[in-house]
Amino acid sequence: MGGDHGASVVIPALAAVATRRPEIKFIIYGREDAVRPELAKFPALSGSSEFVHCEVAVQMDDKPSQALRHGRGTSSMWNAIEAVKNGQADACISAGNTGALMAMAKFCLRTMASVDRPAIAAIWPNLRSESVVLDVGATIGGDAQQLVDFAILGTGMARALFGIERPSVGLLNVGVEEVKGQEEVKEAGRMLREAELSSLDYRGFVEGDDIGKGTVDVVVTEGFAGNIALKTAEGTARQIAGYLKAAMGRTLMARIGYIFARGAFNQLREKMDVSRSNGGVFLGLNGIVVKSHGGADSAGFAAAVELGYDMVRNKLLDRVQADIDLFHARNRQGQTTQANVVKTDEEG
Amino acid sequence: MGGDHGASVVIPALAAVATRRPEIKFIIYGREDAVRPELAKFPALSGSSEFVHCEVAVQMDDKPSQALRHGRGTSSMWNAIEAVKNGQADACISAGNTGALMAMAKFCLRTMASVDRPAIAAIWPNLRSESVVLDVGATIGGDAQQLVDFAILGTGMARALFGIERPSVGLLNVGVEEVKGQEEVKEAGRMLREAELSSLDYRGFVEGDDIGKGTVDVVVTEGFAGNIALKTAEGTARQIAGYLKAAMGRTLMARIGYIFARGAFNQLREKMDVSRSNGGVFLGLNGIVVKSHGGADSAGFAAAVELGYDMVRNKLLDRVQADIDLFHARNRQGQTTQANVVKTDEEG
Repeated sequence: MGGDHGASVVIPALAAVATRRPEIKFIIYGREDAVRPELAKFPALSGSSEFVHCEVAVQMDDKPSQALRHGRGTSSMWNAIEAVKNGQADACISAGNTGALMAMAKFCLRTMASVDRPAIAAIWPNLRSESVVLDVGATIGGDAQQLVDFAILGTGMARALFGIERPSVGLLNVGVEEVKGQEEVKEAGRMLREAELSSLDYRGFVEGDDIGKGTVDVVVTEGFAGNIALKTAEGTARQIAGYLKAAMGRTLMARIGYIFARGAFNQLREKMDVSRSNGGVFLGLNGIVVKSHGGADSAGFAAAVELGYDMVRNKLLDRVQADIDLFHARNRQGQTTQANVVKTDEEG
Repeated sequence: MGGDHGASVVIPALAAVATRRPEIKFIIYGREDAVRPELAKFPALSGSSEFVHCEVAVQMDDKPSQALRHGRGTSSMWNAIEAVKNGQADACISAGNTGALMAMAKFCLRTMASVDRPAIAAIWPNLRSESVVLDVGATIGGDAQQLVDFAILGTGMARALFGIERPSVGLLNVGVEEVKGQEEVKEAGRMLREAELSSLDYRGFVEGDDIGKGTVDVVVTEGFAGNIALKTAEGTARQIAGYLKAAMGRTLMARIGYIFARGAFNQLREKMDVSRSNGGVFLGLNGIVVKSHGGADSAGFAAAVELGYDMVRNKLLDRVQADIDLFHARNRQGQTTQANVVKTDEEG
C-alpha cells in the first residue's frame, strides 16, 4: 500500500521477480480494493502468492507514534512485519512511511541480543562498484559501541550482497582540524582496531568524498551525519542532471550531439537515478526488513525484493549475530583481563 | 606559499585581479626564492603590490599546533594574518593548510565579541544560483547559541556577496524519525523563530537535498555534518563526472555525439569543478580570512581574492557585528523579562 504509487508499482514488480525467481513465495498485505484489480492483471502471479486483506493502511505522512497507535495489529505494514516475526515470511519489503516502518519493526521484531539500536543501511553506488553506508537515519547520535555494532552489521550485509569474504570498513570522519572528529568516532576506531576481527578489515577514518570513490566496502557513521550525506549526494546528483540537461539544450551543436549520444545519456540517467540503487535495509533487528524508496518504479521495487531475498539466502542474520556475539565476548574478556591487571597492580 | 602550486598559481592570479580591480593593493608574503621569479614575469603587478620576505612557510601537512609553534611571528601565513590585525590589510587570502590557517587566525585575530567559535563558510552552487553553507569544518558539534551565531554570520556573508537584503536561512536537519534531529538544532530553530530578526528570514529545517536545490540562501549546521556534506557532494560530483566520461567513450555514436556537444561539456565541467566555486570564508573572527582551495588554479585563486574584496567592500564585519549585538541584546532582554515574570509569580 505504501510509496508514491502503491499496488500499481508493487504488484508488477512482484510479477517480474516471480518470473526470475520462481522459488520465492509472496504474501501480499493490503486493502482489497487497491490490490485485487492489480493482481487480476497478472494471473501468473497467483500461483506464487497469497493475498491477505488488511483494513488499515499506514499513510505516508503518519507520524510513527500515530501509525503504531492506529496500525498495530490491523495495518498491512504491521501484518507484513509480524509475518517475519512468526516465521511465516523470511523478509518484509515495504515502500511505505520509513519512520512508521522502523517504529513498527523495532516494536514487533525487537533489536538483536546485545544490539542497542537499529540502523538503516543504504547501498551506495561508487566509482569502483557499490558500498554499504550506515546509519542513514534510524538513530541520531550514537556511542562508540553502537558504531562498532553498525560496523559488524554493515559488514554482514556487504558479505551477503557483494560476496566479499572480509569487507573493508571505514569510519566516516572529518579531516580539517587537528583534533579530528567526535570522541565517539575516535573511541570506535580504537575498539575496531584492537578487536582485530577476522570478519572485517578495519581501514581507519574515511571522509565524505571517499564514499563516491569507493575507498571501503562499508562506511559507518551515526544517523544524523549519515542521513545528511545521503540526501546531499541525492541532491547533488539531481543538480548535475539539471545542469547536464540545460547544457545539452543550449546550442544547436549540443542538441545534435545529444541525438548521437542519446544511448549513453540514457545509461547515465539510470546510473544516476536514486530510485534504482534501491533499498534501505533495517539492520540490528530480529528479522529482515527492506525499505524501498517511496518514489521507486516497478524495477526499483523489484530490486528491493531481490535485495531482501539475497540477504535471506546468504543467512545474513545468523552470521551477523555470530560476529556480534564474538565481539562482545572478546570485549568482556578484555575488560576482565584489564580488571585483573588493575587488581594485581593494587595488590603489588 | 600554500596550496598545491604555491606562487606559480598565486602570482598570476593577482596579476589577473590587478587588471580587473586596479583599486586593490596586494601585500605578498613568502619566501624570496619562490616568489621573486614569479613576480618577475608580471612587471605590471609591481605598481600595485609590495613583497615581504618571510623565512618560514607553513607546510600543507603541518599540524595546526606545529604550525603555531614554528610559524608564529615568522611564517608568511602568520604575517598575512597579522597584517589584517594591524590594519595594514583588509583581508587575508591563503591557499595553504586549512587547520593551520584557522588556528593562527583564531590566535591572532580572536573571535568577535559574543561569538564563541568561528565557522568556515562555503559558497555552494545550486540549481537556483548559490548559497552559503556553514560550518563546513571549523568546529565539531555546537550548541544552539553557536548555530544561531552561524546563522547571523552566514546571513551577513550572503548579503555582502549576493546582494540579498534579507537572506533566507535554513537549519540542516534529518527527516526520517518522528523526533527529528538533535536537541541543539531544535533549540536553535526555536531561538531563530522567536528572535524575528529583520536581517534574516528563518525558514525552518532543511534536508541535505535542499542544498543542491537552493531552497534557502544560507544553510546552517555544525562542522561535523557540514564537512561530511561538503565532501560527499564533491565526491558525488567527481563520481558523476567519471560516469559521464565513461559513457561518452563507450560507443561510436556516443563519441560522435561528444564531438558535437564538446562546448556544452566544457561548460558543464567548469560548473562541476569544485576548485572554481572557490573560497572557504572564516567567519566570526575580527578580520576577514579567505581560504582558497589548495588545488585551485589561477582563476580559482583569483575568485577567492575577489570574494575577500567583495566582503570588505560591503562592510561584512560591521554589519555582522551589529546583528550579533542586536540578537544578544534582545536575548538578554528576553531573559530578564522572563526572570521578572518568574519573580512576580513567586511573589504572587
